[in-house]
Amino acid sequence: MHEAFVAAVRDAGATVGPLAEADALIWADPQRAELFPELIRTAKRVRWIQLPYAGVEPFVDYLDARFVWTCGKGVYAPPVAEHALALALAGLRHIGAYARADRWLEPAGRNLLGARVLILGGGGIATSLVDLLDPFGCDITVFRRSDAPLRSSRVITQREELDAALPATAAVVIALALTAQTSGIVDHRFLSRMATDAWLLNVSRGEHVITDDLVAELPAGSIGGAALDVTDPEPLPLGHALWSLPNCIITPHIANTPEMGLPLIAARVRENTALFLAGKPLIGVVDVELGY
Amino acid sequence: MHEAFVAAVRDAGATVGPLAEADALIWADPQRAELFPELIRTAKRVRWIQLPYAGVEPFVDYLDARFVWTCGKGVYAPPVAEHALALALAGLRHIGAYARADRWLEPAGRNLLGARVLILGGGGIATSLVDLLDPFGCDITVFRRSDAPLRSSRVITQREELDAALPATAAVVIALALTAQTSGIVDHRFLSRMATDAWLLNVSRGEHVITDDLVAELPAGSIGGAALDVTDPEPLPLGHALWSLPNCIITPHIANTPEMGLPLIAARVRENTALFLAGKPLIGVVDVELGY
Repeated sequence: MHEAFVAAVRDAGATVGPLAEADALIWADPQRAELFPELIRTAKRVRWIQLPYAGVEPFVDYLDARFVWTCGKGVYAPPVAEHALALALAGLRHIGAYARADRWLEPAGRNLLGARVLILGGGGIATSLVDLLDPFGCDITVFRRSDAPLRSSRVITQREELDAALPATAAVVIALALTAQTSGIVDHRFLSRMATDAWLLNVSRGEHVITDDLVAELPAGSIGGAALDVTDPEPLPLGHALWSLPNCIITPHIANTPEMGLPLIAARVRENTALFLAGKPLIGVVDVELGY
Repeated sequence: MHEAFVAAVRDAGATVGPLAEADALIWADPQRAELFPELIRTAKRVRWIQLPYAGVEPFVDYLDARFVWTCGKGVYAPPVAEHALALALAGLRHIGAYARADRWLEPAGRNLLGARVLILGGGGIATSLVDLLDPFGCDITVFRRSDAPLRSSRVITQREELDAALPATAAVVIALALTAQTSGIVDHRFLSRMATDAWLLNVSRGEHVITDDLVAELPAGSIGGAALDVTDPEPLPLGHALWSLPNCIITPHIANTPEMGLPLIAARVRENTALFLAGKPLIGVVDVELGY
């Protein structure tokens, strides 16, 4: 990360030098936030601090309105949306079952082309996913808090509308922030409203799904299957029932790996450095009061 | 198929009636071409014949310039392109390996977003795949016979250009017609030029790949892996080496299943019926001389 950020800063036309003389601090180590208080004391001229995360959790106690803080907000959404699409295609086209097979099985699977897709959440992942789905001609519904439009999708905000949309949906993608309202949203009742050949895809947080309810519904054939990049508990322990269900695919929270994310956050560093040099507003500014 | 075609014809504003009084014959049984010679004798007014296939092989001996013949040319390309994309994502994101796992594995995988993609073949499948890849921002090269442009891709026609493109490509998609020139195109030499983390995807014909060469290269790690919807031999026999290779995904020729294809060919029937009623040129006309 350090090397990539140095290159990004130089690409943008800035120079990399000692902290005591620097106008900006680009944090390039995701692990060692605790070094911040000591380092910042020597940084007499710093006005802007760029953090490498999508959120700012490790720095939340250090946020300080003397500086402009920016983070990687929105940077990591495209790979996560890509993984959601990969899981949807793998599910609808039975690629998990075929990958496990040691023989030529009967034809199965259905198209995502033209299918009905329901996305829970209207943030960066949903926006990126709607973009990736654009050439598929899908009928996309987005369930979100606000009724602000999201590309060409149909936006719904009410639980009754969600319940009404579920039975006709081929792929349900969870792309929600985890809050008291969204934790456990996919429960027995939710799953029982889904079509028997529909797939559930989770790329946000395991706690959105009541795992025991999913374990009960999957073998019963209430839904076509589930492909989960996040689980509750996580990591999913050895011997857990989900590992052995034929219509369940587990990927180990790899929608956005460090390798995938590095060029994306480096591009943000380059962009923000160029904006900083030009005296223009930066991207991904953290609200110091709200802490995100 | 019969029911879907009847609905399509009626949707287009035509009526379905006895063959002796019909102006057009829509063939709705893919299995019984041998009935054609006897049936057509009673069809005094028929001017147009719509066949349900992408090619016209079962009817090739009956083609007769008294009629306008149309087939399903190009209709089935979008589902096949979708499967190619599903396999590319499954490969690059290690979904096959994760689907087989019974435990939380280490992070692996890379993005298709922004990756270099090489498509062998410039027909309907390639065109549909380029469209599906449009939001991914991929760098796409198409290897085809003619240098006619194909959307935003870079078109190459020479073997030396293909050899030069291989090492930097993340996903190589075979979407070729099978000819003497293309049979066995993916051999030891081809595979050894590919990057060690690149995936080979085949959605056209098994004979494009020298299976023994692939079986030799996959465990050696010469390429990242292979995801094949078609094989040689096909079906791939029980106990074949490809079934047990961890970096190989086999799907049983299901890129376009009958269930996926039916609504697509029905839409073509509807479209052509409307064009026929309007006296306009039909889509997918067969050249009776050339036989395709």
